[in-house]
Amino acid sequence: MQYETKKRSIFKAISWRTWATATTAIIVFIFTGEFALAITIGFLEVFAKMALYFFHERLWQKITYGKKEVPSFVLWFTGLPASGKKALADAVYQELLKDKLKVERLDGLDVRPLFPETGFSPEEVNRHVKRSAHLCAMLEKNGVIVIASFVSPYSESREFARQVTTNFVEVYMQTTVEACQQRDRKGHYAKALSGEYQNFPGIDVEYETPLNPEITIEVDNVTIEESTRQIISYLKGNYLNNK
Amino acid sequence: MQYETKKRSIFKAISWRTWATATTAIIVFIFTGEFALAITIGFLEVFAKMALYFFHERLWQKITYGKKEVPSFVLWFTGLPASGKKALADAVYQELLKDKLKVERLDGLDVRPLFPETGFSPEEVNRHVKRSAHLCAMLEKNGVIVIASFVSPYSESREFARQVTTNFVEVYMQTTVEACQQRDRKGHYAKALSGEYQNFPGIDVEYETPLNPEITIEVDNVTIEESTRQIISYLKGNYLNNK
Repeated sequence: MQYETKKRSIFKAISWRTWATATTAIIVFIFTGEFALAITIGFLEVFAKMALYFFHERLWQKITYGKKEVPSFVLWFTGLPASGKKALADAVYQELLKDKLKVERLDGLDVRPLFPETGFSPEEVNRHVKRSAHLCAMLEKNGVIVIASFVSPYSESREFARQVTTNFVEVYMQTTVEACQQRDRKGHYAKALSGEYQNFPGIDVEYETPLNPEITIEVDNVTIEESTRQIISYLKGNYLNNK
Repeated sequence: MQYETKKRSIFKAISWRTWATATTAIIVFIFTGEFALAITIGFLEVFAKMALYFFHERLWQKITYGKKEVPSFVLWFTGLPASGKKALADAVYQELLKDKLKVERLDGLDVRPLFPETGFSPEEVNRHVKRSAHLCAMLEKNGVIVIASFVSPYSESREFARQVTTNFVEVYMQTTVEACQQRDRKGHYAKALSGEYQNFPGIDVEYETPLNPEITIEVDNVTIEESTRQIISYLKGNYLNNK
């Protein structure tokens, strides 16, 4: 929760008084033509009202009317391995940080160490994704915006994430297995093809295409900057408009 | 993140103007003795300054100076089963909610369904507590106050929780196995003694007494209201003092 310090109220009082006393002195001068009177009244006003302004600010500290929380949401990137989820999610995260928003960034691989015994079978992946969805929901409920990137190849656990969260924004990285293989610098696809990795989405298990994602990124036709703008524009239109 | 609506700024402008124009009119009247002049100047000032005040407020919306976050912390209750952790943690939680603070309440049993395969062996309990500590740390990092109650009988995982969090407040529920047995309405101790439960702290595994808890509650000598006050007083002295 945010609060405002007494120093802030003092600075606001001084800043307000500078503007306001000038106005008073000018009005008095226009009406009376007396320069000395205008200055004297202005001078007295400075002290009386600066103190009053300070107490006015402190009083409004206790009034919650018109103080709003920026709505939080879960921005969930799903797509084949090496479809560019992580890089795009990181770019969007950096954009939101610029707006001084409270954002948490969760990547599938970073979350795994929290649940050390998790494997890669469809059941384990579903369980991992569901647990992570609970984590997202808890952060979202507490006013934190969550940027999550998980391969999350199975509809079941993605739908679960949609249900446990309040504002779920699914970003589908639309591309092909072939394009991902070409992009894949870490050699994951080669390992999956050689049999070193099992249950690899796009190779030996199906990546279940999202049916109604909020945002579809045509990975192979757009730059990361364009995709970032596309997502930020969606968010400003739906959640960050009131700020 | 919080923001203030335009309506709030308008209401503040009206509220401020009521006080401030009265002051101006009185000062003008005292100096000129002219009632009509005082009223005219006051009247003109109302419109000029109300608009100015509004823009002054909107400008200060963009200035972050003197806006502070209430520091968050993890209040961690540890103690034997049926030592009263949950009830006391709930009472403290309700107190903090009254102050409109952002608080998450985590109880050991509520968190378990998130990690369905977790058992009760010392290794599994340590793992469960450590995962929960990560969750607490993530919430704390994002400005959420966490009230956690876990039997957490082993020093190892409690120390881990202390390390991964920033402001860790350990509350030790000091009591005896005998007193807990008497308090235990759910019959857990009886089941542990009959062998139905294994690894039950205080019965067949040791509850490792915290060595340097921030707060010790003498469960058998104080009421829940007194304990709540003791904890709130500690928190006001250490984390919630600046508000």
